[in-house]
Amino acid sequence: MRDLGEFALIAQINAGRTQGPAVRLGPGDDAAVLAAPRGQYVVSTDMLIEDRHFRLDWSDPEEIGRKAIAQNAADIYAMGAEPVGYVIGLGLPGETPVDFVTRLADGFWAEAARAGGSVAGGDIVRSAQLVISVTAFGDPLGGAPITRSGARAGGTVALAGRPGWSAAGFAALSGAHPEANRHHGDSDAAVAVAAHRAPRPPYDLVRAAMAAGTPPEALTDISDGLLADLGHLAAASGVAVAVDSANLHDPDLERCAAELEADARQWILTGGEDHVFAGVWTPGVTPPSGWTPIGCIEAGQGVTVDGARYRGPTGWEAFSGTDSAKSDHSR
Amino acid sequence: MRDLGEFALIAQINAGRTQGPAVRLGPGDDAAVLAAPRGQYVVSTDMLIEDRHFRLDWSDPEEIGRKAIAQNAADIYAMGAEPVGYVIGLGLPGETPVDFVTRLADGFWAEAARAGGSVAGGDIVRSAQLVISVTAFGDPLGGAPITRSGARAGGTVALAGRPGWSAAGFAALSGAHPEANRHHGDSDAAVAVAAHRAPRPPYDLVRAAMAAGTPPEALTDISDGLLADLGHLAAASGVAVAVDSANLHDPDLERCAAELEADARQWILTGGEDHVFAGVWTPGVTPPSGWTPIGCIEAGQGVTVDGARYRGPTGWEAFSGTDSAKSDHSR
Repeated sequence: MRDLGEFALIAQINAGRTQGPAVRLGPGDDAAVLAAPRGQYVVSTDMLIEDRHFRLDWSDPEEIGRKAIAQNAADIYAMGAEPVGYVIGLGLPGETPVDFVTRLADGFWAEAARAGGSVAGGDIVRSAQLVISVTAFGDPLGGAPITRSGARAGGTVALAGRPGWSAAGFAALSGAHPEANRHHGDSDAAVAVAAHRAPRPPYDLVRAAMAAGTPPEALTDISDGLLADLGHLAAASGVAVAVDSANLHDPDLERCAAELEADARQWILTGGEDHVFAGVWTPGVTPPSGWTPIGCIEAGQGVTVDGARYRGPTGWEAFSGTDSAKSDHSR
Repeated sequence: MRDLGEFALIAQINAGRTQGPAVRLGPGDDAAVLAAPRGQYVVSTDMLIEDRHFRLDWSDPEEIGRKAIAQNAADIYAMGAEPVGYVIGLGLPGETPVDFVTRLADGFWAEAARAGGSVAGGDIVRSAQLVISVTAFGDPLGGAPITRSGARAGGTVALAGRPGWSAAGFAALSGAHPEANRHHGDSDAAVAVAAHRAPRPPYDLVRAAMAAGTPPEALTDISDGLLADLGHLAAASGVAVAVDSANLHDPDLERCAAELEADARQWILTGGEDHVFAGVWTPGVTPPSGWTPIGCIEAGQGVTVDGARYRGPTGWEAFSGTDSAKSDHSR
């Protein structure tokens, strides 16, 4: 890469890519130009750091690229919007092979094909660690974006996707159970490892919920852990969330936990990075097909599980070093 | 910072900041929401890496923050647009003092006040090096964004701002002339050092040019070096740029170069990071007040200076390690 130069590298990773319809001007000028037919747009940004958010010995470049797009695209869907474009800052060690960067870009484009939108621009610089900074742009799917702050008492909380699998994959890959890295095929552990390497947020369920005519009144993605993110929603809406764990049972994950001598309940309640979605539906409205009711909104504050405050670790922050199940590889 | 935690840190650096009118939803939800009254928006992203794009022993946190916003805001203005918002990914070593981050954010907001727009969101993660990834959004000031590709033969090339000062500041700060680091006050070297630490792009001259009724037909910012960026404009437009160096003389910079035993002409022609602007005006149209004519557009390709191809180094790329005047601190 040092030999190829920045401009040649950018030309190479952009070769043969087709921009989406919202991108009026793609890479090559001082800036990109995107259409905003609804007069407003949604913006999210996330930074991924080598050995902190991914490990080169655990994931291939395509998986890292897919993960980087997925966690940003999930934030766009979590606003009731669909991604139309991404710009990506890449910090690369000088010895990075060009092939690695091309495969990383293949991962960006593969997940963008699932989520919607195209990579409209970026910046490549040299750095000591591999750094990937994605900013995603989206159009509201309905009349306006859906925030975390619209939940009202009496509403139903429902989940799209199965939480805990990324945490299970992290446990399977981590030193405590190195043998799990050799799981292959359709085993629970192999599914968990794949989920950890590159989450597959259920974008289609958000899309369907928005199209169904009964959009949620509050919506968020679960990136820090189910209880942590429901806590953010509760705080933003000024309400309490009462989780009923009956519908959170996941026999596949429990079997996986038994194999790894771990606690599936903790993965489900506190594991981060699954990028599943939690929505709140107005009192009396049934959540759409594919969304699993897991609790209700009450007056008050905070989050309870089966009527009690959960005693385990309830979240993860970049600097706090709490003992959660999120894949903070450097802790 | 490790003790404070990510959420508390974000709350602290956002405290007391006022979002601009285009930001419909600022920090705190899954994503920000921005208004796009013109139905389209301009997006630029740049990543700055410690010891590569800035040095902590050369610049204070406010200057680093100002530089990060300035180089992105300049890209927005280079499209004939004005910034309305920024999102910022921050990678911070765990031992970074909270005060450092607050002062960095003060720099973001100070330059945003000059350029327009506000910091609408971001992400903070832990990393080995300090990494700042800024994405800027802007509204076109005219009917449509202005690209690099609109220059036609017969047009006049004009410059807003004085190129070469950042390169001079880099030379003054670098090991060859360590005594220049002690220049203070209004000396040429002190002005150059300030320009290198935090460029002050002449946003107002772009704004005035767009308001004057005779906008440029092509526009770019000078970030890689004057000849390099004019070369990009020439290639994008399918034309040649003939620079007349008579109007590029800068007696202050020449005096500074004499003090430092350096070549002002090389700083002016190849120095990067000044974020001045080059525009091209339609044949027969005089560039607006404050813009200095420096050449003309001809049929052909490439860039000449006084009729000859420039023989010196003509640009800088992140990985090529060419011997230019851009402040690639790690070369």
